[in-house]
Amino acid sequence: MREIKPEQLDDLARGAGILGTGGGGDPYVGKLLAQQAIRAHGPVTVVDIDEVPADAMVVAISGMGAPTVSLEKIPAGTEEVTALRALERALGRRATHLVPIEVGGLNSMVPFIAAAQTGLPVVDGDAMGRAFPEAQMVLPGLIGVTVAPMAVADDKGNTLVLDTVSNLWAERLARSACVEMGCSVSCADTVMRGDQLRDGLVPATLTLAEELGRAVREARAVHADPVAAAAGMLGGVRLLTGKVVDVERRTSGGFARGEARLAGTAGDTGRTLELSFQNEHLLARRDGTVIATTPDLICVLDTDTGDPVTTEGLRYGLRVTVLGVPCDPRWLTPGGLDLAGPRYFGYDTDHVPLPPH
Amino acid sequence: MREIKPEQLDDLARGAGILGTGGGGDPYVGKLLAQQAIRAHGPVTVVDIDEVPADAMVVAISGMGAPTVSLEKIPAGTEEVTALRALERALGRRATHLVPIEVGGLNSMVPFIAAAQTGLPVVDGDAMGRAFPEAQMVLPGLIGVTVAPMAVADDKGNTLVLDTVSNLWAERLARSACVEMGCSVSCADTVMRGDQLRDGLVPATLTLAEELGRAVREARAVHADPVAAAAGMLGGVRLLTGKVVDVERRTSGGFARGEARLAGTAGDTGRTLELSFQNEHLLARRDGTVIATTPDLICVLDTDTGDPVTTEGLRYGLRVTVLGVPCDPRWLTPGGLDLAGPRYFGYDTDHVPLPPH
Repeated sequence: MREIKPEQLDDLARGAGILGTGGGGDPYVGKLLAQQAIRAHGPVTVVDIDEVPADAMVVAISGMGAPTVSLEKIPAGTEEVTALRALERALGRRATHLVPIEVGGLNSMVPFIAAAQTGLPVVDGDAMGRAFPEAQMVLPGLIGVTVAPMAVADDKGNTLVLDTVSNLWAERLARSACVEMGCSVSCADTVMRGDQLRDGLVPATLTLAEELGRAVREARAVHADPVAAAAGMLGGVRLLTGKVVDVERRTSGGFARGEARLAGTAGDTGRTLELSFQNEHLLARRDGTVIATTPDLICVLDTDTGDPVTTEGLRYGLRVTVLGVPCDPRWLTPGGLDLAGPRYFGYDTDHVPLPPH
Repeated sequence: MREIKPEQLDDLARGAGILGTGGGGDPYVGKLLAQQAIRAHGPVTVVDIDEVPADAMVVAISGMGAPTVSLEKIPAGTEEVTALRALERALGRRATHLVPIEVGGLNSMVPFIAAAQTGLPVVDGDAMGRAFPEAQMVLPGLIGVTVAPMAVADDKGNTLVLDTVSNLWAERLARSACVEMGCSVSCADTVMRGDQLRDGLVPATLTLAEELGRAVREARAVHADPVAAAAGMLGGVRLLTGKVVDVERRTSGGFARGEARLAGTAGDTGRTLELSFQNEHLLARRDGTVIATTPDLICVLDTDTGDPVTTEGLRYGLRVTVLGVPCDPRWLTPGGLDLAGPRYFGYDTDHVPLPPH
């Protein structure tokens, strides 16, 4: 058990942005909202999975929508607790702990907003060990935990509570409401008991994110290589260092989708890397060959600073390094690949192991 | 207080189909579902507004969607009670009475399905005195009754409960869910106390629908003019007798929209009538001039049988008579016209009084 103070969120947001593989929302907006909430209400307690009682009621708090929208349509900062309270009313029980659904930039911060406002502790872990674009892409789904009942709240004060026959239907109905509500909403869902967390969560990812963010910051401070520091901590393999030469993006179906093309520089001169994304980076082709796929993490970092580059932050001329990082092994089981493998997203390829270091 | 038996629903559905101005769903499908429910569970009690206790909890039960879809995607018959129970859970109270939201064909029948299955009585009245395409177009809205909390259920077992900042938002969010759920769902909403019914409902419209349906049937039996019988009972004015020569329809945004063109026959030879509809008939132009608009009722009847012709049933060659029928006077107040006047639907005209008899 430890307390998180506003200034720690700088490192945590940076690290979560890297683990978020380009998605999970812009860490900057989320960080400011969480820091403001902590300054207003006091520090947030983070607890390890082992510290959560077996009968605890753990609720995942997240933002849903297109990150491109959340950049301009700043959340009100009240949606998280509105969604949480609506879910609690539907269940007739109060949450005892909150947890991030994913360690994306905005979505690693969102539980801290609700935690500061309610005084509830945040569990050190998340339901993906990365970020994914759709609500049913969570490890708890592999052990029978349902996304619904799921509460969705917007900035205007509208809420809805879903009860669905499958996690895919929870995604479909929440997504269509999200689009109607303005493409940026908050969700409370995926209710777990404390004794389900070990199987349902990737443990200690908030700690990992904070340490990762610190390692990048410290490397930068001593003019060492921040990207190498990140790769070393994550066991990541460098896929390409280069610059962005083309980005094609569209906001469709409530997602930020698109492709980006990178031209190699320095040791990679002459090589190309193509990234495909749907909120998150999902596929990387090097010189025309698939070399990394979801559910492995494809992380795009600013080559100079080591800062994460979100899919909506990709732009012509940006100097980046792309890392491939192994996902939680549960994602490589048949059930995990069904949920979040490349074929689910419509890519005509199986999962491809990352190239060797 | 009286009991409704399955065979009475024939007249009721026919009359409600006429009052439904082409919308509210196909009366045939609704009638079969309600008759089956009554045969399985016993007769349904219908009570007058005056018989409802002041503290009663009255819930409107309806179908939402595009009538064109409900024709082919037959409801499961369980959605109504699923929606009702979800609403009751959200409110922590049980309904004492059900009521139709509108007297459209399917939607006058839908409360009887739920009433037969639950044993609850149905209030003789409805919230429109006709049918309208959108959820916020209800007279209770003029006295401050909100559409939400609103429960929506589909045939697959998915439910959602909305709590919204306005009736328009209830419509928007329920509609987007409806589209995602397959364009045909059931709703429980617009909760009223018994002492709100006099101002919130158009009274005795179920009785009117049944008498109207009987009058048409009896006129037909003696080879009298069934359309004249309907017009006489409703104070309606004949706008044109003719045949359908063109229909253009599209299902968009969860609605059945389109236009139909009629060429006059007999005494109307040489005249034309153009109908514009969005689930319901909303505007009639005779020889290029607007002669009837929402919120007045524009009723299309089969000239020979007096049976109602739904907007989705319009087809080339059909011989029909179009009646204009005055709406409930509350619809002609500024608030009523804001909700359901021609300008709300995008027509560049004010409400036009019906032509004299």
